Amino acid sequence: MMEKEKHDLLIFNGTILTLNSNYDIIEDGIVGITNGVLKRIEARNKDKELPKSQQVLDASGGIIMPGIINTHTHAPMTLFRGLADDLPLLTWLHKYIFPLEGKLTFDLVYKGTLLACAEMILSGTTTFCDGYFYEDAVAHATRQAGMRGVLGQGIIDFPAPGVPDPAENIRHAERFLESWQGETSLIIPCLFCHSVYTCTEKTLRSAHRLAEQVGVLFQIHTAETQEEVRKVKKERGVSPIQYLYRIGILERETLLVHVIWVDETDLECVKKSQASISVTTESEMKLASGIAPLPSFLAKGIKVGLGTDGCASNNNLDMFREMDTTAKLHKVVSLDPTVLDARTVLTLTTAEAAKTIGLWDQVGSLEAGKRADIIIIDTKRPHLTPIYNPYSHIVYAASGSDVRDVIIDGRIVMKDRRILTFDVEEVMRDVRRESAHLARGFPLTRG
Amino acid sequence: MMEKEKHDLLIFNGTILTLNSNYDIIEDGIVGITNGVLKRIEARNKDKELPKSQQVLDASGGIIMPGIINTHTHAPMTLFRGLADDLPLLTWLHKYIFPLEGKLTFDLVYKGTLLACAEMILSGTTTFCDGYFYEDAVAHATRQAGMRGVLGQGIIDFPAPGVPDPAENIRHAERFLESWQGETSLIIPCLFCHSVYTCTEKTLRSAHRLAEQVGVLFQIHTAETQEEVRKVKKERGVSPIQYLYRIGILERETLLVHVIWVDETDLECVKKSQASISVTTESEMKLASGIAPLPSFLAKGIKVGLGTDGCASNNNLDMFREMDTTAKLHKVVSLDPTVLDARTVLTLTTAEAAKTIGLWDQVGSLEAGKRADIIIIDTKRPHLTPIYNPYSHIVYAASGSDVRDVIIDGRIVMKDRRILTFDVEEVMRDVRRESAHLARGFPLTRG
Repeated sequence: MMEKEKHDLLIFNGTILTLNSNYDIIEDGIVGITNGVLKRIEARNKDKELPKSQQVLDASGGIIMPGIINTHTHAPMTLFRGLADDLPLLTWLHKYIFPLEGKLTFDLVYKGTLLACAEMILSGTTTFCDGYFYEDAVAHATRQAGMRGVLGQGIIDFPAPGVPDPAENIRHAERFLESWQGETSLIIPCLFCHSVYTCTEKTLRSAHRLAEQVGVLFQIHTAETQEEVRKVKKERGVSPIQYLYRIGILERETLLVHVIWVDETDLECVKKSQASISVTTESEMKLASGIAPLPSFLAKGIKVGLGTDGCASNNNLDMFREMDTTAKLHKVVSLDPTVLDARTVLTLTTAEAAKTIGLWDQVGSLEAGKRADIIIIDTKRPHLTPIYNPYSHIVYAASGSDVRDVIIDGRIVMKDRRILTFDVEEVMRDVRRESAHLARGFPLTRG
Repeated sequence: MMEKEKHDLLIFNGTILTLNSNYDIIEDGIVGITNGVLKRIEARNKDKELPKSQQVLDASGGIIMPGIINTHTHAPMTLFRGLADDLPLLTWLHKYIFPLEGKLTFDLVYKGTLLACAEMILSGTTTFCDGYFYEDAVAHATRQAGMRGVLGQGIIDFPAPGVPDPAENIRHAERFLESWQGETSLIIPCLFCHSVYTCTEKTLRSAHRLAEQVGVLFQIHTAETQEEVRKVKKERGVSPIQYLYRIGILERETLLVHVIWVDETDLECVKKSQASISVTTESEMKLASGIAPLPSFLAKGIKVGLGTDGCASNNNLDMFREMDTTAKLHKVVSLDPTVLDARTVLTLTTAEAAKTIGLWDQVGSLEAGKRADIIIIDTKRPHLTPIYNPYSHIVYAASGSDVRDVIIDGRIVMKDRRILTFDVEEVMRDVRRESAHLARGFPLTRG
């Protein structure tokens, strides 16, 4: 480290949770950032002046940690938050979600995504992995917000928002990849096949071939409900995971989402293929899909990340709540309080999450050479006092609203809870105006 | 309603969720308060001026609703938050909690309770039902904070904080009741017998007789773990609930806490006796105690309220998270998304909760004649935008940090998230200072 180097941003006066492989915690640490890269992470030397920097940020004794990674969401579904709750799955899907999605436009998806970005930044998420339609609008909004997005254009063999003719779905996705591949380092385009039961084998194979050729992530909802598994077994002879394995789609760049109704053979296929899994605990609970055997995934050495899923089925994008609920759910269903300790759960939204979406070389921990995605937690709050163990507080006591500052790719995106990259008030006004139109014709479930 | 009456406080410009028996929602409502009592709850008449009032509070288009009721906690355990997580139950209890409680003093309990009150007020709780030792200190702190507390002096047949000689436990509790009965309307003293397995029959009967004589609530942890039920069945011949029923302790003024490992006969006893149940979902999950059959309680018509339990086993006092997790947990374990809809869950922290602790005539809904315990939710936030259904947002999207103002007994206790009744910074400093002493000698679980 050259002492003469002048950083763009220097963060000091906080406890650094590095989440590196050694789980180093640096008390009274400093972080130096140059050109969006973490250059310096070390304990402060009280005998010396702080290293020179263009900008400095005083963490005020709080926690400095990697930005949170949400490995599965459908960002624009903020538009439907609270419009349809506590309903049987098929009613929810056919009477609400599908007709609502029929009303979507590029502009609505753009606005809904900005709203999601506001919520995610305000709750400490710096990277999210998305899958939806009009993903081009999602990408534009994500760029505007200054977030890191792994964004998958949706592929489904039904008429979809922005893709009225399913025969065009692969070509549409290809154009999306072409537009965004290499366009900006923060937007990482990819593909999102909806599921085995909504895509033909031809579509799945074509989509996967495209993902392989371009070298991008391939996401797919898998084994979410018992009904899905029954249907796939009946129609394709084996379980969804074994089917994907058989047709050669399960591999290192595949991210399976949900993965609830699985057996030992399914998990062996995932393990052998080195595919990853995204678990969206709260959404799976709220829709009553089931409980993914997350501790078994970890025991097998399968890469796992947590996600929120969309706001129509959660109904929030706060990953802190997701961590808390995930830890507690698995303790109680196994009747073992030692299952999923706090530090392990935190890795599922940082280091391990980065691995599931192919970004481990860039983010997920605070280590020299990585991109500077950092959040600062304000710990001077009653519910975070006193502090014996920072991991425990992050998982069991903190909420997204305890995040004070957010830095993405070296840029301060939120300072003192004010988002600096776009006008949040305007976005809320816009969405509020559109919501009357969206809700028209739907029986509101007000109780 | 006399138009000439001048209120002490008038709240306007918000959507009122009354939580009355009709579940009335009043858009653009006004609430008038005089002498701590709700005098006026109605839609604003745009053609008239606002009613006269000493003080006015603009809800800025937010939600005006009853203050939240936490039906079970051990407030001073904020002191131990995050000191012992993810441990086997007996290690947690014997190696951490009991030795830690051995260090408690009146002063520490007072400070820990003030910290808890800060957290509760900041997350919209206006009434809490507590059970601990040095409950006199809890009462002093609660009065200082301006909260409504149903506070139970702990009774256990072991040496306890402040009661080194168990032979003194009933007398000690009696003195507590004498000190606080009728002292101030906000402090409602009561008794908290720890459990069947830690109290002899003589102690249980004496304590209950005392509660009956003075006319106060009788709380007891019941059927929390499988081990407890096995032990009680072995030693007393029947399950904990059937035992309490047999010795005449199960009645209208009894609040059973946890109630996880129960059978049909147990529930019949609860129903017949008109006793109430407090369910502390998140704590029960984190300690891996089990899942209380809450939907069965409701189906039987048993009174149920939610609670957080203490911070050593949750680790927060945010009732909004408790609602969200409770709804989602019961949906997924029953594989039925219609179980525990949002409005039902909200009643478990308001109207129904008030019934479990004997305060339904005073609080739990916004109705003329009741005491004015009110919170205002700031809905101008990305994660609460747009609004189709306020119940849904409160349960599935909001956190305690969305509460902007808190009124207890007609007094503004928090305004714009600033607590007005005591110096929160000072309390946090005090507890931080004490925490080093508390932690000394305990192996910290930093992972």
